[in-house]
Amino acid sequence: MARVTARRSIVRIDTSTGQQSRRPDSLAAEEPLEIRVDHSALAVTMRTPGNDIDLALGFLLTEGIIGSDDDVHTAQLCAGTDTPNTYNVVDVKLTPGVPPPVTDPSRNFYTTSSCGVCGKASIDAVRTRSRFAVDQDSAKIEASTLVTLPDTLRKAQRTFEATGGLHAAGLFTTDGQLVVIREDVGRHNAVDKVVGWGLRERRLPLDGHVLLVSGRASFELVQKASMAGIPIIAAVSAPSTLAVELADEVGLTVVGFLRGSTMNVYTRPDRIG
Amino acid sequence: MARVTARRSIVRIDTSTGQQSRRPDSLAAEEPLEIRVDHSALAVTMRTPGNDIDLALGFLLTEGIIGSDDDVHTAQLCAGTDTPNTYNVVDVKLTPGVPPPVTDPSRNFYTTSSCGVCGKASIDAVRTRSRFAVDQDSAKIEASTLVTLPDTLRKAQRTFEATGGLHAAGLFTTDGQLVVIREDVGRHNAVDKVVGWGLRERRLPLDGHVLLVSGRASFELVQKASMAGIPIIAAVSAPSTLAVELADEVGLTVVGFLRGSTMNVYTRPDRIG
Repeated sequence: MARVTARRSIVRIDTSTGQQSRRPDSLAAEEPLEIRVDHSALAVTMRTPGNDIDLALGFLLTEGIIGSDDDVHTAQLCAGTDTPNTYNVVDVKLTPGVPPPVTDPSRNFYTTSSCGVCGKASIDAVRTRSRFAVDQDSAKIEASTLVTLPDTLRKAQRTFEATGGLHAAGLFTTDGQLVVIREDVGRHNAVDKVVGWGLRERRLPLDGHVLLVSGRASFELVQKASMAGIPIIAAVSAPSTLAVELADEVGLTVVGFLRGSTMNVYTRPDRIG
Repeated sequence: MARVTARRSIVRIDTSTGQQSRRPDSLAAEEPLEIRVDHSALAVTMRTPGNDIDLALGFLLTEGIIGSDDDVHTAQLCAGTDTPNTYNVVDVKLTPGVPPPVTDPSRNFYTTSSCGVCGKASIDAVRTRSRFAVDQDSAKIEASTLVTLPDTLRKAQRTFEATGGLHAAGLFTTDGQLVVIREDVGRHNAVDKVVGWGLRERRLPLDGHVLLVSGRASFELVQKASMAGIPIIAAVSAPSTLAVELADEVGLTVVGFLRGSTMNVYTRPDRIG
């Protein structure tokens, strides 16, 4: 069931020596996961199998469909019909009284509202509203602690070591302790798995914590952090314009290019000591 | 209209010297683009503005909705209502007689078929069918030429230089000439922009060419290459299991970890000389 990697025979070529050799290689697994709410399909995501219930719960929370563990009656991984059996469907049953996802069949795709508008409005079009006041979070982290996080994350990334092919998301305390790490071919999935873990462990909001992502910080990742009540997001690589604009609006700290001894702080630098 | 980057004041921290300074920084732009077909919204993608018509056409081609330029009556960027005016909607009018996208309103999201099944079937669930026989493509490229492509791509990546935040996709001839390069915060968008360019230039299928992507090779990217008739995809980083399985099935060459003088060839090594 934990098909996180797969072995495969490859041809390795080195043009400096002219050598070609056949050898085994480990690949990061990628498979579709269908997320259903009360038996209705809501979304399909291409993900690395593992922690799929957390992925589904994190997705539903960051999309604003559920607000806490109390909104979930049951969440289960459904078996498929193939041999060997695999598990590529999660069905989440909402607690009676929780409104189902708002979808507009005339638009043919799942989205929280209409889109195609501009500037400030274009953010509104794709964004969800957090129930947590991230801007009020008084968390602080020392810059000297922040610079240690990428190394801690990388050392905890077991599958990356084997495949070189996975994004990671790690949740840290402000004294630099790693609380949980999740890996996935999709960085949004890695974050959803962290958030879903937090929901299932009844730790939401994840206030006073730092979310570190191994790649870039997109709008979507800042939004997911905000929805989970995380006040600080740090990325090894660059943030986008919309990520920073959203962070500005909700009062979330964005740190980018966290490498070696340096970093760029894009928003709310008052949280960095 | 070309909001590819934006300037912003940031705080730069270096813990090795203890220095903090405020300075300007360039960010990669990210904005939502709504893709409409005959005035109906089909999808929203978070992209870097620029080449939006190509992005929409490439998306429609790689999703199997259109097969060539002949299927497109008109494609236009619609202005929004804000000031300053921005352009975050592309409306594609299909040529009369071309069937509209098949969407299943009961599933609430755009997908080409049902999902949540397993193994071989799980690929079928998310895949589209190419009208081009990529497996018959007799293209060959020397390994010594292949290793030069990442450097060529990086030198042509103007926005990355400024922001460090964009993926790139480049289309090359088998003698290593760069034909077209596109950059985007989403690597799938960068590939769609290349494919849409090919469609608009009436160059499809893009047989005899090599597609180089700056990051990892996911299932989605191999599928897009296959839909555009590209026989070889090379990635600077790792491919996923499903990417390699699909490439196996359609006879597409996948090269990964193309760095320095070395590379891994996952499928159809007969095309690498």
